Amino acid sequence: MNRLLAVDWGSSSLRGALIDAGGAVLEERSFARGILTVAPGTFPDVFASCFGDWMTPDTLCLVSGMAGSKQGWREAPYCSCPAGFDAIAAGLEWVEPGRIAIVPGLSIDKDGIPDVMRGEETQIFGALQLLGLDHARLVLPGTHSKWVTVENRQVTNFSTWMTGEFYALLRQHSILARMMPADEPAPDEAAFGRGVTHAMASAGLLTTAFSTRTLPLFDRMNASALPSYLSGLVIGEELKSQTLRRGESVVVMGAEALSARYGQALALLGVTVQRVGDGATWRGLQAIAETLRKPFNQAA
Amino acid sequence: MNRLLAVDWGSSSLRGALIDAGGAVLEERSFARGILTVAPGTFPDVFASCFGDWMTPDTLCLVSGMAGSKQGWREAPYCSCPAGFDAIAAGLEWVEPGRIAIVPGLSIDKDGIPDVMRGEETQIFGALQLLGLDHARLVLPGTHSKWVTVENRQVTNFSTWMTGEFYALLRQHSILARMMPADEPAPDEAAFGRGVTHAMASAGLLTTAFSTRTLPLFDRMNASALPSYLSGLVIGEELKSQTLRRGESVVVMGAEALSARYGQALALLGVTVQRVGDGATWRGLQAIAETLRKPFNQAA
Repeated sequence: MNRLLAVDWGSSSLRGALIDAGGAVLEERSFARGILTVAPGTFPDVFASCFGDWMTPDTLCLVSGMAGSKQGWREAPYCSCPAGFDAIAAGLEWVEPGRIAIVPGLSIDKDGIPDVMRGEETQIFGALQLLGLDHARLVLPGTHSKWVTVENRQVTNFSTWMTGEFYALLRQHSILARMMPADEPAPDEAAFGRGVTHAMASAGLLTTAFSTRTLPLFDRMNASALPSYLSGLVIGEELKSQTLRRGESVVVMGAEALSARYGQALALLGVTVQRVGDGATWRGLQAIAETLRKPFNQAA
Repeated sequence: MNRLLAVDWGSSSLRGALIDAGGAVLEERSFARGILTVAPGTFPDVFASCFGDWMTPDTLCLVSGMAGSKQGWREAPYCSCPAGFDAIAAGLEWVEPGRIAIVPGLSIDKDGIPDVMRGEETQIFGALQLLGLDHARLVLPGTHSKWVTVENRQVTNFSTWMTGEFYALLRQHSILARMMPADEPAPDEAAFGRGVTHAMASAGLLTTAFSTRTLPLFDRMNASALPSYLSGLVIGEELKSQTLRRGESVVVMGAEALSARYGQALALLGVTVQRVGDGATWRGLQAIAETLRKPFNQAA
């Protein structure tokens, strides 16, 4: 296999990249064909229509993300943590043996409570490659943020934080939504910082969230500052529980605007940030592909 | 004034009771005329149509609840804590001098962050009367739960917890809603207790809430148990932050079913519970009326 077709097939989007043997991205495509839009049984057709022309005989395809869930193309059972590249490669679910495989997600069990990820494991391994790290603390902010600990290139611990979803619920559906402008005002860094600081010093989001109502009630904050303040409250609540040490370094992965907010909040705690952007998924899939080649070609 | 017309005028409901000089409730009425249904300027008309026939010359009317908010009948500015009966009585907003007054709510300021209540102050003072207490720790569970500390018959501290609203948001609008039956299944005490216990031992609701997704994913909890489990998670999160001591006594006020849940959760922490039901508001308004009579009639 000389070429890799790297595919990131999530709930709401489908992206692919054609990568040559040297690791260069030759071409990228993206489609609004997340797995939620795909009828059961039609995954091969959707795949063929989006990427069929790229699947030459010398192309290996690796797919990460929700395509490996029960509702996806083919279920790829979770690998239990601790888990590294080798476990992921051993757990690949082959849709077409030797040609198309789905990358398994990771699971962890803490006192009988499971946690899971799908897709993020590939981003994490990609980030380790890009940064040349064997040990790291990482955060992947989003609807469901992941905090991840990597030791000796193994994911040894992780947890999910429904931070982005809580923000959206409070912003759109709660009593607090009535205090805020319907349109998204410009980000207010000072209000965001005030939210982070209040969250860090307080007992919990159930009570700090109410200040989004009382501050404007007493004319202590403008309506246009409230969305940024609320964002600070939920992100601060997430960070408060991570027992971060001043001077510690955290890898922040993901979209620009949200990563910048996490960077600002982490800076308030004296934590150093390394940022990794979108390239991590392609690099992670490449790393898995290289692991597969090793038994045949030790030079990889 | 020989008779008291006690009125509880909230956001979504309007209730009144006619109470004789001896404290006996002669008659009660309730209407779906919460302040959100009342057009500005029409509060006197709505009041007259609901209670006009009770307003004889020897009747004093006291109104508690959101009727005293900016969006209500007449704004009654908050009394700052610490505050007791006397401050409330001194802060009455007279709509008709000597005849109809609105009870002010309470406010508190902690490090520049305000908190407020309207209506609960009356329930609290009523509960103190009913239980014969001068000192108490109280909780009023609900959409926005209040935790209250009373010392020497003064409210010295309180805080608001958006517990009921968070539950409703997660139950109805979040990704977790998809895991649960649309109809409300029978309460599951074991699942509720498991939620409380997990919340008490964990880092916060942003992460514990996700277990409502992963437990059924791994067939470790039935869909019908999830609403009770989620209720345990949010109530446990609220209780975790109250620094309750084993053997401590807490007054739980409010509706039967929710009070019972709080009772169960507090029992798990070894906290003793005293329950107070709906009569507290009428008793609180009576107590304020008695304070008014004192200068004229020390026998009250």
